[in-house]
Amino acid sequence: MTKAEIQTFRALYEKELFDNIVPFWEKYSLDRERGGYLTCIERDGRIFDHDKFIWMQGRELWAFSKLYNTVRHEPQWLEAAHLGAQFLRKFGRAPNGDWYFALDRDGRPLVQPYNIFSDCFCAAAFMEYSKASGKEWARDMAIQGYRRIQERKAHPKGIWTKQISENRPIRAMAMPMMQLWLAGEFQGAISDAEREHIIDESLDQILRLHLDRERHAVFERVYPDGSHPDCMEGRLLTPGHALETLWLVLNTAEQRGDRAMIDDVAPVMLWVAERGWDEQFGGFLYYQDYEGFPTEKLESSMKLWWVHVEALMAFLLAYRLTGEEVYESWFRKVHDWTWTHFPDHKDGEWFGYLNRRGEIELTLKGGKWKGFFHIPRALMNCSQWFAEMEKSSLEVK
Amino acid sequence: MTKAEIQTFRALYEKELFDNIVPFWEKYSLDRERGGYLTCIERDGRIFDHDKFIWMQGRELWAFSKLYNTVRHEPQWLEAAHLGAQFLRKFGRAPNGDWYFALDRDGRPLVQPYNIFSDCFCAAAFMEYSKASGKEWARDMAIQGYRRIQERKAHPKGIWTKQISENRPIRAMAMPMMQLWLAGEFQGAISDAEREHIIDESLDQILRLHLDRERHAVFERVYPDGSHPDCMEGRLLTPGHALETLWLVLNTAEQRGDRAMIDDVAPVMLWVAERGWDEQFGGFLYYQDYEGFPTEKLESSMKLWWVHVEALMAFLLAYRLTGEEVYESWFRKVHDWTWTHFPDHKDGEWFGYLNRRGEIELTLKGGKWKGFFHIPRALMNCSQWFAEMEKSSLEVK
Repeated sequence: MTKAEIQTFRALYEKELFDNIVPFWEKYSLDRERGGYLTCIERDGRIFDHDKFIWMQGRELWAFSKLYNTVRHEPQWLEAAHLGAQFLRKFGRAPNGDWYFALDRDGRPLVQPYNIFSDCFCAAAFMEYSKASGKEWARDMAIQGYRRIQERKAHPKGIWTKQISENRPIRAMAMPMMQLWLAGEFQGAISDAEREHIIDESLDQILRLHLDRERHAVFERVYPDGSHPDCMEGRLLTPGHALETLWLVLNTAEQRGDRAMIDDVAPVMLWVAERGWDEQFGGFLYYQDYEGFPTEKLESSMKLWWVHVEALMAFLLAYRLTGEEVYESWFRKVHDWTWTHFPDHKDGEWFGYLNRRGEIELTLKGGKWKGFFHIPRALMNCSQWFAEMEKSSLEVK
Repeated sequence: MTKAEIQTFRALYEKELFDNIVPFWEKYSLDRERGGYLTCIERDGRIFDHDKFIWMQGRELWAFSKLYNTVRHEPQWLEAAHLGAQFLRKFGRAPNGDWYFALDRDGRPLVQPYNIFSDCFCAAAFMEYSKASGKEWARDMAIQGYRRIQERKAHPKGIWTKQISENRPIRAMAMPMMQLWLAGEFQGAISDAEREHIIDESLDQILRLHLDRERHAVFERVYPDGSHPDCMEGRLLTPGHALETLWLVLNTAEQRGDRAMIDDVAPVMLWVAERGWDEQFGGFLYYQDYEGFPTEKLESSMKLWWVHVEALMAFLLAYRLTGEEVYESWFRKVHDWTWTHFPDHKDGEWFGYLNRRGEIELTLKGGKWKGFFHIPRALMNCSQWFAEMEKSSLEVK
């Protein structure tokens, strides 16, 4: 990329973030009446469900706090963060401190705290919010949450576990991926030794078990010895999840100055991308079976917004760290498909759920699983990486 | 329909059942090596997963037993039933007698007995099998299972319940629908008084709560007072499920000789059909939101085999019972779409999962949720109803 191109990309990503994405959520999502966020938002801004899903509440609190902390001290972002933090603090937790999965608009719990990722998003959110607000109690809540996640992670669903793991001791990639993200978010809040331990443990599970060097694939679920049960869940591939995990690994490797890991892991993105890209209609498939059998997911061939913004981060970071043209080329390919298919130039924000052909399948801008998180995180990270590329290309010349 | 047309339809439905569907499952599904049934079957017959999902095991045992009991005493159908019955009897139940959700190929449990519909399908299956085999223990198991369902039905997921029903006391249509089916299957095995009570209770919930006469819709989930929470789950419509429930209601009304109920309920099918039919591409949508908002189901616009065969039963039964042309016309419309989209003339059986355009989305013939049940049940019922129509049209003329 030339310096001019990098500047153009950065300008585009920043403009999208500040002129399209952030204003949409500021306009429609803040529940000033009852607190917290409304996240089920139709294409034109109408709220179609007032339930408050904790993943979405935590993620939005994280994103507003992050904008405040890393972009600029915009008072309305802090005020938006207060809104979520106060609601979550007051209503989000069960008596034992674990986070519910869903509340109604007024904060009454609707779904039990069976899902540890509610706790993960809230821990990261309160950590970020504590930096924005300076509130000590928020930092305490975050650290307490983090500790509880470590206690629960071996049996994340607790009494709600339906899988009988003695007979199929399968491990999912979601937990080590999340731990890697949390380790980054908790820098300075937990000891370096503890942080390094969590990172090592996560990298070990990802690189030794999920990443299969013989078969050139990243498996979603594996046995503790790295083998794969020959069944639907054992053969499941999730290109978006794999690419998200891989950029988190590269990011960690960069922070550690581990050049060998960067050179080792970046090419793995190409295995995922080549297999996951839909040659017929473009875009990445949501799910695939390693052997090409049907998956158990009816939505396998859909094209999702988060998959594509995670892919953008993956290839841009790989390009920035290696300078290799193959990553630049994938970045441009994903960029073009993403920018021509997801943004809604009429009503703002992005569509999230396209069918295989790239046509809009669900018209929502926000829902039970799409909130104010993946797009702002990707646009913030990419903008920052573009900025660093501008500087280093200056230095090189 | 003329008598000749009825005969042609009956011949077609019987031929499909006996020359296409049944042979496919006899050929690929029977696990003579380890017992039970293999139900994850690729388009060409290859088995792509050997796990044994109890819904699928119970349903297949039911279907082979039903064929044996109602069509003819074909020894290989009884043998196929033995295979499933012995496997289920030996491995299917947890120590407390409740049915697991999934086992591995050898019968080791993989998923806890959290799902009461496993128990429902097994109860019906062993009842039907007891008639085929004459085994007293099978009848005892069936009745015991039936009693346990009655105990559990108020809290069907038991300790695995994640919904907090105090704050949203929602009721689902699946339970009364299933009870109505079971009441039919257990005729003669439980007392008439008990049976009538279950039927009354189920009809009351369906007709008073789920069926909304003001809004001309059948809601999947309702409050105990028949009102609807204004959220995604409260607005959810499932055309296939509604039509399945409605033909079970009509069937019950016919058995009771309740002409008023037939005349009252048959037109409800038209509300469902008119709203659920996809004018653009044909076929019934899988899910809809009453207000036209996005549902939380990514697969909402897909066209599923079971939805269409349930619709065939609904309209044929309504036509047979009322003689009204509007039901005949819907039957023909659904018949034409179904017959041109689902059957696989190359490798046999039917595809199950089409996209909105009616193109094959998942190539499987059997999977975690598609087994040997909806198609044979529909083809058997429709054939029988055609036969009755032939007779009565003779009488009329």
